[in-house]
Amino acid sequence: MPPGDRLLIGSGRLLVAQPDGAPRPGPLSPWALLIRDGLIAWVGSPDDAPAVGEVDDLGSALVTPGLIDAHTHPIFAGDRSDEAAARLAGTPYSGGGIMRTVAATRAASDAQLLDLTAGRLAAALGSGTTTIECKSGYGLAPAEELRQLAIIGRAAQRVGIRVVRTFLGAHAVGPEAASPGEYVASVVDEMLPEAARHAEFCDVFCDEGFFDLQSTEGILTTARSLGLGLRLHAEQLARTGATELGVRLGAASVDHLERLDAAGVAALAQSRTVATLLPGPALAMGGPLPPARELLAAGARVALATDANAGTWGSYSMPMAIGLGATLLGMGVDAAVRSATFGAAQALQLDEVCGTLRAGLAADIVAWDAEHEGAFALRMGDVRPARIWMAGIEASR
Amino acid sequence: MPPGDRLLIGSGRLLVAQPDGAPRPGPLSPWALLIRDGLIAWVGSPDDAPAVGEVDDLGSALVTPGLIDAHTHPIFAGDRSDEAAARLAGTPYSGGGIMRTVAATRAASDAQLLDLTAGRLAAALGSGTTTIECKSGYGLAPAEELRQLAIIGRAAQRVGIRVVRTFLGAHAVGPEAASPGEYVASVVDEMLPEAARHAEFCDVFCDEGFFDLQSTEGILTTARSLGLGLRLHAEQLARTGATELGVRLGAASVDHLERLDAAGVAALAQSRTVATLLPGPALAMGGPLPPARELLAAGARVALATDANAGTWGSYSMPMAIGLGATLLGMGVDAAVRSATFGAAQALQLDEVCGTLRAGLAADIVAWDAEHEGAFALRMGDVRPARIWMAGIEASR
Repeated sequence: MPPGDRLLIGSGRLLVAQPDGAPRPGPLSPWALLIRDGLIAWVGSPDDAPAVGEVDDLGSALVTPGLIDAHTHPIFAGDRSDEAAARLAGTPYSGGGIMRTVAATRAASDAQLLDLTAGRLAAALGSGTTTIECKSGYGLAPAEELRQLAIIGRAAQRVGIRVVRTFLGAHAVGPEAASPGEYVASVVDEMLPEAARHAEFCDVFCDEGFFDLQSTEGILTTARSLGLGLRLHAEQLARTGATELGVRLGAASVDHLERLDAAGVAALAQSRTVATLLPGPALAMGGPLPPARELLAAGARVALATDANAGTWGSYSMPMAIGLGATLLGMGVDAAVRSATFGAAQALQLDEVCGTLRAGLAADIVAWDAEHEGAFALRMGDVRPARIWMAGIEASR
Repeated sequence: MPPGDRLLIGSGRLLVAQPDGAPRPGPLSPWALLIRDGLIAWVGSPDDAPAVGEVDDLGSALVTPGLIDAHTHPIFAGDRSDEAAARLAGTPYSGGGIMRTVAATRAASDAQLLDLTAGRLAAALGSGTTTIECKSGYGLAPAEELRQLAIIGRAAQRVGIRVVRTFLGAHAVGPEAASPGEYVASVVDEMLPEAARHAEFCDVFCDEGFFDLQSTEGILTTARSLGLGLRLHAEQLARTGATELGVRLGAASVDHLERLDAAGVAALAQSRTVATLLPGPALAMGGPLPPARELLAAGARVALATDANAGTWGSYSMPMAIGLGATLLGMGVDAAVRSATFGAAQALQLDEVCGTLRAGLAADIVAWDAEHEGAFALRMGDVRPARIWMAGIEASR
């Protein structure tokens, strides 16, 4: 028996997800799970469990894979809560939105940004997120965007959370650019070659009033040629066709989709591109909701994420995203939990790394202060991790 | 200068509410507030502040009155999260709903119920609630209902939260009753005379499939004659006229109102009865939403509450209720915060005790980990108290 092996056992519900098309098992209960070298080595019934020295009994707690947040913007300075209040009061707000955050973020020191970002990632981990996608995008100039990617990496190391970095230079047109075209050229020629060494994905804010389909395609094809995976902001403010563009380019994910129509649902259902839904900002913005039930019914891959950012949603709680997905988006609890674990892993192309509890994947595991996953709908962000293992190591609390 | 005086000062936003009809002040900033003998002795500009020994600088933190949760059901045993998941999956659930909770609660010992209830009240206080209304109603027999009222009082004492107790024997027909009429007679004749000595209010679940208008009126008029204040569950499952009954009987509050129509809105606007809205279960149940904007526009008194209970909503977070009120119900942040403080105090007939920050009221004060109340919409339940004062005493953390 190798030293360091640890057997977790429980009499409660262990939620597992199967690959697409495989039969969907109910939760295991009772269950046992063997951790070896940071990975899950075995999962099954306690009766069949291998004999190991260290056994940890989690009792009746609900146990899930570590949650995966596939869409966040955690690196910025400043506070725009006043904008949220003004928007909900129907008051036109003249604070400058994203450019206000860009100015505050550029003005912050590396140490300040590191502290701010690490604090947000710690909040994510503390609410049960073990893997988090983090976008740059509040820099909008070559040195600033690269600085953000570097600090995201350091913040994740400090916190001990698995991070996926996304370059989002095309979040808005940089304030110094003489024209959108000039800025797109800067993204493609100046930023992408260097960003590709510090990020896994490239994202573009492809929507009405931001980047059009042609610019988006130019940025993403260059990103792909540099080895970056692709993701898009799509169909939030208008039905632009960003979804079909993402499918055609082989994007890992198209995100938002509040204005997706039946043709877009069908396009996603026939693709491997994940529909990443963001119920938090959809709630806070008061606009249309993404067609979650239609996407699930059509067989599309679906992920849930927080979209935690500076302006429209500020919570890093994936339990709240699950709760809002289950209720506000009408997904139900099973699909919402699956979308926040297995579907999110697909959206980050990490489904051979994490996202469910099967042998060979990372031992990213959360035991909750709940006995049934229905608690995510009843208590939302109030459901808290009781214990968290990150690659087999229990997070200190 | 009396010993024990304490001056709080801040450079951030201090939110205050004025009585109905008075001009609505903006937030005070900067501000100073004098605590003396558990009360607010003075509020104003730091320049005009009295000289005292102990000064506590809260910096740029947002400061509000302690939040007031005017509708909860915190005393029960058992877990019905599975029901929530089944309901959201569209599966008819045969678990017995409220009767399942009644059975589990009756089976629990006093010590168990005290621990469970105190844990919930501690969660409420920890999320910024300094006054909480707590209903009995999972007993449905004379001794059980009285046991619940007694334990609620002990739990509140243990936690150090201001409590308002409501007798809700008429939550459902007790399982031993041969007929609804027999149960109503038991409520009126057996339970109410004793309950009136241990509660401030009487509530009735007046809705389709529960208690009808006639039974409700019988219970409430007896309650009133015994000195209890009145509140009603109204218009959640059907438009029954419970609102107009409540107005006619002088109820402090009618609660839920998902199916209230324009006539009901008008009736409330012309009364002193508060419309207590419960966005959590409205979200979780997926049905219609209460007409919050219409009530506000008509000038009705409005409160927000969690309705934390065993079956349809489990969160004691008033910040989440404020966030859902501001967004899901479309109230905006200002009205949502006012409804969770001043409006809720009116709903509990405590507006001469707490609910705003003015001289003479209890020094129930929360400093938040936020600088602007818009954070309640952006971060919802993630907004946390940094410091809490309860009747002038700072809560330990």
